[in-house]
Amino acid sequence: MSFKVTNTNNFARRGVLQTKTSTIQTPVFMPVGTYGSVKGLTPKQLHDIGFEIILGNAYHLEIRPGSNLVSSLGGLHKFMGWNKSILTDSGGFQIWSLDSLKKVSDKGVSFKSPVDGSSLFMSPEDSIDIQMKLNTDIIMVLDECTKYPANEKDTSQSMELTHAWARRSKTHFKKMNTKNLLFGIVQGGFHKKLRLQSLDYITQLNFDGIAIGGLSVGESKVEKTTVLKSLAKHLPKDKPRYVMGIGTPEDLVEAVRYGIDMFDCVMPTRNARNGHVFTNDGILKIRNAIHKTSDRPLDESCDCYTCKNFSRGYLHHLEKCNEILASTLLTIHNLTHYYKLMSKIRSSIEKNKFEEFVESFYDMRDLKTPRL
Amino acid sequence: MSFKVTNTNNFARRGVLQTKTSTIQTPVFMPVGTYGSVKGLTPKQLHDIGFEIILGNAYHLEIRPGSNLVSSLGGLHKFMGWNKSILTDSGGFQIWSLDSLKKVSDKGVSFKSPVDGSSLFMSPEDSIDIQMKLNTDIIMVLDECTKYPANEKDTSQSMELTHAWARRSKTHFKKMNTKNLLFGIVQGGFHKKLRLQSLDYITQLNFDGIAIGGLSVGESKVEKTTVLKSLAKHLPKDKPRYVMGIGTPEDLVEAVRYGIDMFDCVMPTRNARNGHVFTNDGILKIRNAIHKTSDRPLDESCDCYTCKNFSRGYLHHLEKCNEILASTLLTIHNLTHYYKLMSKIRSSIEKNKFEEFVESFYDMRDLKTPRL
Repeated sequence: MSFKVTNTNNFARRGVLQTKTSTIQTPVFMPVGTYGSVKGLTPKQLHDIGFEIILGNAYHLEIRPGSNLVSSLGGLHKFMGWNKSILTDSGGFQIWSLDSLKKVSDKGVSFKSPVDGSSLFMSPEDSIDIQMKLNTDIIMVLDECTKYPANEKDTSQSMELTHAWARRSKTHFKKMNTKNLLFGIVQGGFHKKLRLQSLDYITQLNFDGIAIGGLSVGESKVEKTTVLKSLAKHLPKDKPRYVMGIGTPEDLVEAVRYGIDMFDCVMPTRNARNGHVFTNDGILKIRNAIHKTSDRPLDESCDCYTCKNFSRGYLHHLEKCNEILASTLLTIHNLTHYYKLMSKIRSSIEKNKFEEFVESFYDMRDLKTPRL
Repeated sequence: MSFKVTNTNNFARRGVLQTKTSTIQTPVFMPVGTYGSVKGLTPKQLHDIGFEIILGNAYHLEIRPGSNLVSSLGGLHKFMGWNKSILTDSGGFQIWSLDSLKKVSDKGVSFKSPVDGSSLFMSPEDSIDIQMKLNTDIIMVLDECTKYPANEKDTSQSMELTHAWARRSKTHFKKMNTKNLLFGIVQGGFHKKLRLQSLDYITQLNFDGIAIGGLSVGESKVEKTTVLKSLAKHLPKDKPRYVMGIGTPEDLVEAVRYGIDMFDCVMPTRNARNGHVFTNDGILKIRNAIHKTSDRPLDESCDCYTCKNFSRGYLHHLEKCNEILASTLLTIHNLTHYYKLMSKIRSSIEKNKFEEFVESFYDMRDLKTPRL
């Protein structure tokens, strides 16, 4: 692996990450393909938008169809027909979302399969073995996502478990001679002291990249930004930095301001399937009757396949008729919107004009730029 | 319009149909896009397969979103982003399918909207007006699809109504100075005398093309072929001939043998969404457990996007997870299969080798070629 930072503007960084499979321009947004498919799009459509990396979920893929099967069919890239990079989430966040169905011990996590109710167990080592069978480019360690809200004592205990698992993961992964990359995950909830302690611990384990977990769990925007702000100047300079599971376009802009390089979120894809569209003028809900007769594209400033070829009136009609094509066309638009946002961010950092970009970004939304 | 037959092999014809929008090579299969969308595919994906014409349903589009709206947004081509030809079905067959909800009189058909239960009425003139607002390339007259089975008296009465409507449609359409084409529809059920009488009547009205309606209503394969056989030598030579709503690959081959030039059917698209796949080795049901671990494409002899990039194992997995992408990929394959079949038929007629093609077609399926 190589990761190079080519430009910086305050904390914001423009970089290039090389995996065994492809070259990724950062800051980057990764579309989510939970079950080995970014819902509604072919790999060709994803490629045509410009994406260089997507995310898969080790937890979901282990339940269906199983990592052994994916491995026997040539690994996740070949299985899903995607020839650029893939990052897999370890399953920590997904098992955490199961709530009542899980039991966490030092050894790992016991949980019931949401498909057939059978009892399953995953240790940090298991998660790495699963991801090695999927043979993706970037592997995430198993962590415990701390519940929200949680007091300092509970958060600290949960963080210690994450740290012990991170150490075991690193030891297990070292034995494998592989070009796959392993990223560690920082926890510590919404307690600054713990977050810094966790960052320090994870940094010392010398992973290929540093992820910030435990966000998007119900916290406020301010709480989220406070975590990023508190970590910004302590993040290792030579490693890619990834905030997991966020977020809105505003969240991405703020996180880049605090030095983050990588993102994933279901928002552009899931919202598309609910008729919720991101535009440069804000949110547009295509199911609203106001769009029924409109000959305008979703976003006049967008040149995606959907905006170049279809009116709001047509897309409203497809939604009303529950046509599959509505999901596909709105997903193409939303993902293009996210792709273009990251593209504009990258180009502004290159020109040393990121802060100007941030101001115009908030101006267009009639919002005041938050202080860095 | 121009329609030219360039080659014939017995009854089978190779031809070229020019509409106001595009040139169509016949025999041709038209994918069905009921609500202004061929379910699961973008117009680009349809174009990439090679299709030159698709079908829309005037009845469905009048109910949602309404022909006035489509007209105000530039007509059906612009509305759905499809720049090649479109044929619209008049609504006869669809209203016939409503069964208990309709009432037929000389004036037209009264029926209840399946969307909101409101009372609607469609005369032959209304159907043409609707299709003129959609501004499609080929317009179908409103007909009454005779119920099945029906005795000679009932069939004859129903046919007379269809004839009266056909005459009114022609008169109404003549007043419009348009490059759109109008096709008449032959009825007469499964009574040879009536079918010939109907063909004679419809032919004399001098439509731009002749359709055979009233098939795919529950009849046997033999009954279907008998109708086509009885009409074959009486069909007008200078007009495109269209059998509505059929069928299986075998149905298409048989109909071409009896001189048919145009087809539409929901089978390749609907079956794809149910995991039912057409291959050169016969039917494949992708949901069967046998495909779970298979690294083979759906059809080794197919070069569609799906067969070039995905295994049966992956497609089985997508189906099991109810991923939208399964519908899209299987639809691409099934429509490619139909497109390629018509392409092989056309090329064999050009080479004066259609009967050889028919024999090899049945051989591959371990079937005996039916006698012409």
